[in-house]
Amino acid sequence: MNAGPMRAVEDLLMPKTSPGNFFEDFRIGQLIQHATPRTVSVGDVALYNGLFGPRFAVQSSDVFAKAIGYPRAPVDDLLVFHIVFGKTVPDISLNAVANLGYAGCYFRSAVFPGDTLTALSEIIGLKENSSRTTGIVYVRTTGMKQDGVPVLEYVRWVMVRKRDPGAPTPGDHVPRLPTTLDPKVLGEACPPIATAAYDTTLSGSAHRFADYKVGERIDHVDGVTVEEAEHQIATRLYQNTARIHFDLFGAKQSRFGRRLIYGGHVISLARALSFNGLANAFHIAAINGGRHVAPLFAGTTVFAWSEVLGSAELPGRTDVGALRLRTVATCDRPCADFPFKAGDDYDPAVLLDLDYWVLMPR
Amino acid sequence: MNAGPMRAVEDLLMPKTSPGNFFEDFRIGQLIQHATPRTVSVGDVALYNGLFGPRFAVQSSDVFAKAIGYPRAPVDDLLVFHIVFGKTVPDISLNAVANLGYAGCYFRSAVFPGDTLTALSEIIGLKENSSRTTGIVYVRTTGMKQDGVPVLEYVRWVMVRKRDPGAPTPGDHVPRLPTTLDPKVLGEACPPIATAAYDTTLSGSAHRFADYKVGERIDHVDGVTVEEAEHQIATRLYQNTARIHFDLFGAKQSRFGRRLIYGGHVISLARALSFNGLANAFHIAAINGGRHVAPLFAGTTVFAWSEVLGSAELPGRTDVGALRLRTVATCDRPCADFPFKAGDDYDPAVLLDLDYWVLMPR
Amino acid sequence: MNAGPMRAVEDLLMPKTSPGNFFEDFRIGQLIQHATPRTVSVGDVALYNGLFGPRFAVQSSDVFAKAIGYPRAPVDDLLVFHIVFGKTVPDISLNAVANLGYAGCYFRSAVFPGDTLTALSEIIGLKENSSRTTGIVYVRTTGMKQDGVPVLEYVRWVMVRKRDPGAPTPGDHVPRLPTTLDPKVLGEACPPIATAAYDTTLSGSAHRFADYKVGERIDHVDGVTVEEAEHQIATRLYQNTARIHFDLFGAKQSRFGRRLIYGGHVISLARALSFNGLANAFHIAAINGGRHVAPLFAGTTVFAWSEVLGSAELPGRTDVGALRLRTVATCDRPCADFPFKAGDDYDPAVLLDLDYWVLMPR
Repeated sequence: MNAGPMRAVEDLLMPKTSPGNFFEDFRIGQLIQHATPRTVSVGDVALYNGLFGPRFAVQSSDVFAKAIGYPRAPVDDLLVFHIVFGKTVPDISLNAVANLGYAGCYFRSAVFPGDTLTALSEIIGLKENSSRTTGIVYVRTTGMKQDGVPVLEYVRWVMVRKRDPGAPTPGDHVPRLPTTLDPKVLGEACPPIATAAYDTTLSGSAHRFADYKVGERIDHVDGVTVEEAEHQIATRLYQNTARIHFDLFGAKQSRFGRRLIYGGHVISLARALSFNGLANAFHIAAINGGRHVAPLFAGTTVFAWSEVLGSAELPGRTDVGALRLRTVATCDRPCADFPFKAGDDYDPAVLLDLDYWVLMPR
Repeated sequence: MNAGPMRAVEDLLMPKTSPGNFFEDFRIGQLIQHATPRTVSVGDVALYNGLFGPRFAVQSSDVFAKAIGYPRAPVDDLLVFHIVFGKTVPDISLNAVANLGYAGCYFRSAVFPGDTLTALSEIIGLKENSSRTTGIVYVRTTGMKQDGVPVLEYVRWVMVRKRDPGAPTPGDHVPRLPTTLDPKVLGEACPPIATAAYDTTLSGSAHRFADYKVGERIDHVDGVTVEEAEHQIATRLYQNTARIHFDLFGAKQSRFGRRLIYGGHVISLARALSFNGLANAFHIAAINGGRHVAPLFAGTTVFAWSEVLGSAELPGRTDVGALRLRTVATCDRPCADFPFKAGDDYDPAVLLDLDYWVLMPR
Repeated sequence: MNAGPMRAVEDLLMPKTSPGNFFEDFRIGQLIQHATPRTVSVGDVALYNGLFGPRFAVQSSDVFAKAIGYPRAPVDDLLVFHIVFGKTVPDISLNAVANLGYAGCYFRSAVFPGDTLTALSEIIGLKENSSRTTGIVYVRTTGMKQDGVPVLEYVRWVMVRKRDPGAPTPGDHVPRLPTTLDPKVLGEACPPIATAAYDTTLSGSAHRFADYKVGERIDHVDGVTVEEAEHQIATRLYQNTARIHFDLFGAKQSRFGRRLIYGGHVISLARALSFNGLANAFHIAAINGGRHVAPLFAGTTVFAWSEVLGSAELPGRTDVGALRLRTVATCDRPCADFPFKAGDDYDPAVLLDLDYWVLMPR
C-alpha cells in the first residue's frame, strides 16, 4: 500500500501479451471459447485454390453443386478444418512440444461463403509425463457457424510444457478415443445428392462408389514442390499463429534449423493430389486419425498414394457411399510402388499417414 | 477363367489414375468435354491482380466499367483464357512433348464474377511425325458459360507422344489455320462503349485509338522478377495440372533441371507491363498467334515492348477501334532498343512473341 | 516543315510511356487525379489476410462487426492506405530518390467490400535542394469512395529528381505539418460502438482502453520472415508500380543489390504482430508520422514492440478511446528488451518507427 504511483500502475497492469496456457493451467471439463471469429469468403476459397489446386467439381462450381443438391458450392472441407484448428493454437498449443495426434474428426454441416466460424474446445483429458516437465492435453474442439450449428468436431492431443515442474498435476485422465468413426455419423454435412445429375464427365472420372474395392491402391502420380511463401500464406490465411511456421530467425536455433511447415499443409497437398484417382471423392466426411510421420520443409516435393481400407453404405441413404482411405504422402519419392512401412517403421520418405472417410456418389 | 476371387477383382478394376491421352487415342472430329467446371469469383480476380498487377481501369473498377457500358467490371481476358486452357491439359497435353502454337483465339463474351466456365474441345487435325513416336494434335477449344454462351475460342497444336510407336496413325489432316483474325469477329465480347464517359484521367493515359500508328514501337520500361511461389500459385489457380510446373523432384531429371513455368505466365506478365504505354487497350479481343521462343524460369526478370502491327475499325462500330500488336517479352534484358530478331533467329533474350488485337476507345 | 511523312508522324506521336513527373513539373496548388480506380473486394481482403495474418475480430467477422455497430466487417485500414498510396506512385514518386516521411494521416470513413477507391493529390509544398539536382515535393493525398466521400487523408514528402538541373525552381514553400493529430479528428471512420456487445473473449483480449497506461511497453513476441513472393504479391495487390520492388535485374545495379521491399509492408507486418498485446486496438484512426529507419529485404525476420505514448478520450464519445502508440519493428532482433535508440541514433536493428492512434472500446 506504500508503493508510489509508478509502482501502483505497474501492479495494476496485467501483462498484455498472452504467454499461452501451460500444462498446469488446464482443467478437465474446462471450456475454452477461442478468439477471432472468421467470415469465410470466396476470397479465402480462391486463395486456397491457388495454394493447393484442388479440382473437385462440387467445390469448384456453383452450377455443379446446385445440380446435385447443394445451395451453392461448399467451402473445401480442409479449409474449414484449418480455419477452426488455427483458432485453437493461441489457447491450446502455444507451449506445445509436439502435436501428437487427432481422432474422431467429423464434418457436421457444410460451410458456404458468408458463414462465420468460431471454435470452442473442451479439455477432456490430462496426463502428466513422468519427467513432470510436460503433460498431454486431450481436447475436443467444435467449429461452429454464426447460428451455433456445429460444422466440425475433432479431438487432438498435444504435449504441452509445464511452467513450473513442481506444480501439482491438474488432472489425470486419458479419455477413450475412437479409432474409426462409425458410418452412422458420416454424411451429416452432405445434403441428399441427386446422383443422376452428378455428371461424371464434368467431375473428371467415371468411377463411382461401387468401382472401388477394399485393398485397392492408387498412385496419385503427380508431385508438388512446396515454397516458403506458399505455406506461410496458407497458414496465415487460417490465422494460425504458431511461431515455428513463420520465424526463420528463431527456427535457426531450433533442432530443425529452419521453418517447420504446418502439419495441415501436407494434408491439403495430398488431398489435392488425390483427385487423380479419386475425382469423385467429393467430400471428406471424417478423419479417423492422422500421423505426421516426419516434418515437412520447403523445397521438397510431395507425392501421395491411397489405399481403400473400407467401404460402407450409409444408414438410410442410397445416394452416396463412404470409402475409408489411407492416404500416404511422401517427400521426394514418387509412389508407384506405394511406399509405406519398412519393417516396423515407416519408410523414411513417408511424411503423412492419414486415415479418413470420403463420400462418393453411388 | 480359373482366377480366384482376388484376381477377378483385379480384372474388374479399371485403372483409377488417368494416364492422359496418347497420339493414337485421338480421332479427327472427336469432341472432348473437359472436367471441373469453375465458378469465377472476385477472389480469383484479386489473386490474379496480386500475381500480375494489371492496372486497366475497366477490369479494376465496377464504377468505371458501368460508366462506359459494362454491367460491372469484367474478369481479365487472360484469366479467362488461362482457366479455359487449364481444363484442357489433363485430356490434351498430359503426354505432350511440346506446345507448338496457338491461333485463331478470340473472345466472344465478357465474363463476370459468378459465371461458371467449362471447356469443350474438338480434334480438328492429326499428323504423325516421321519418327512414328509422336504426332501433332490440332485442337479447337471453346470456353463456355453456364448458359452455353461461348466466351472464348482458340486453336492450339501440340506434339503428343504415342503410347505404341507401332500403332496405326489415327488420322492425317493438317487444318488450315488463320494467321490473323478478321476485324469482323473482334469486339463480340465488348459491349457498346460510351466513349464520352471513358475518363482518360482515371484510365491513366490520354492516348486513344487514333493516337497509335502502325509501325510505332513502345518500350514498357518496367521489369518484373518471377518467383517459384508466384507461378505455382497462378497455375494452380487455373487448375492447370501439368507436372513440369510443380514437381522439382521430377524436373531435376528433365533437360531443364528445374521447374518450367507455364507459358501463359509470361503472357500475363507482358500484358500487365504493357499498361505503361497502352493504358487504354482495355480489352484483348483476339490472339492471332503466339510463340514461346524460350522457356521462362523463376529468378529471371521479364521486360516487354510492343509494336503496332495494324489498326482497324470494327464494322458498324464507332466506339472502339482495334490495334494489332506484337508484344515481345524478354528475359533479363530491358527493351529500350526493342530486341527482336538477330539475323534469322530471335534475339537470345526473347521469351515471347505475341501477335494479338486489343480494343481501344475512339 | 520540310520533314517527310515518316518524320511528320513521329512529330505527331506523343510518347506513350509515362516518364513520371520530375521536380520542375510540379506546381504549388496543383491537383492530380490519379489513375486506376479500384473496387475493393472480399478477394482483396482474403489475400491481404494470407499475406499478413491480422486477427482483429472486427475486420475478420461480419457477425462481430455487425454486433458492435458496423454494417459488416470493414476493410483493414492499412489495406485501404496501401491501395490509395499505390495510386499516387506513377504521378508522384516514379522519379523519387527517397520517400522522406508522412504525416497527418487520418481515416475519415470506413471502407467495405464493394466500395471503389480513387485518389486525388494536391501539391502543398516545393523546396529545391542546394544541389539543384533534386527537390522535395510535399503532397496531400485524399482517398475517396465512389460517392466522393473521403476515406483517408495524408501528407507525404518525397525527394524527386529534376530532369534538368538548370530548370528554374517551380516553387519555394515548406508547409506546416502536424506532428500529432488532434483527437478531435479521430474516430470519423468509426461508427458508434456498442461496447457491451464487444465480446472480449472473441476478440482475444480482456484489455480495454482503460487498461493501457502511458509509458507502458509491450513486446509483441512473434517474428515473421519475409519472402520475395509475398512482398511482390502484396505490392501488386495495391497496384503500386515502383520498379525497385519487382525488378531484380535492375536492383542488382542499385546500391542495395537486391529488391527493396515497399515501406508499407513492414507497417502491415508490425500491425499484425501487434495483435499479441493490442488485440482490441481494432481501428487505426490516424498515423501521426512514420520513419523507415532502414530498408527491409526478403529473408529477414521482422519483430515488433509498442509503447503507449498517449491516451485520449474522444470529444462527445464514451464508446471508444484513443491510444497513441509508437510501434517499432526490427530486423532479426526479438524485442523483449524494447530496442529503440542507441545514443542519438536508432538501434541498428530498427526498421520502422511508427507513431499512430488506435481506437479501443471503453
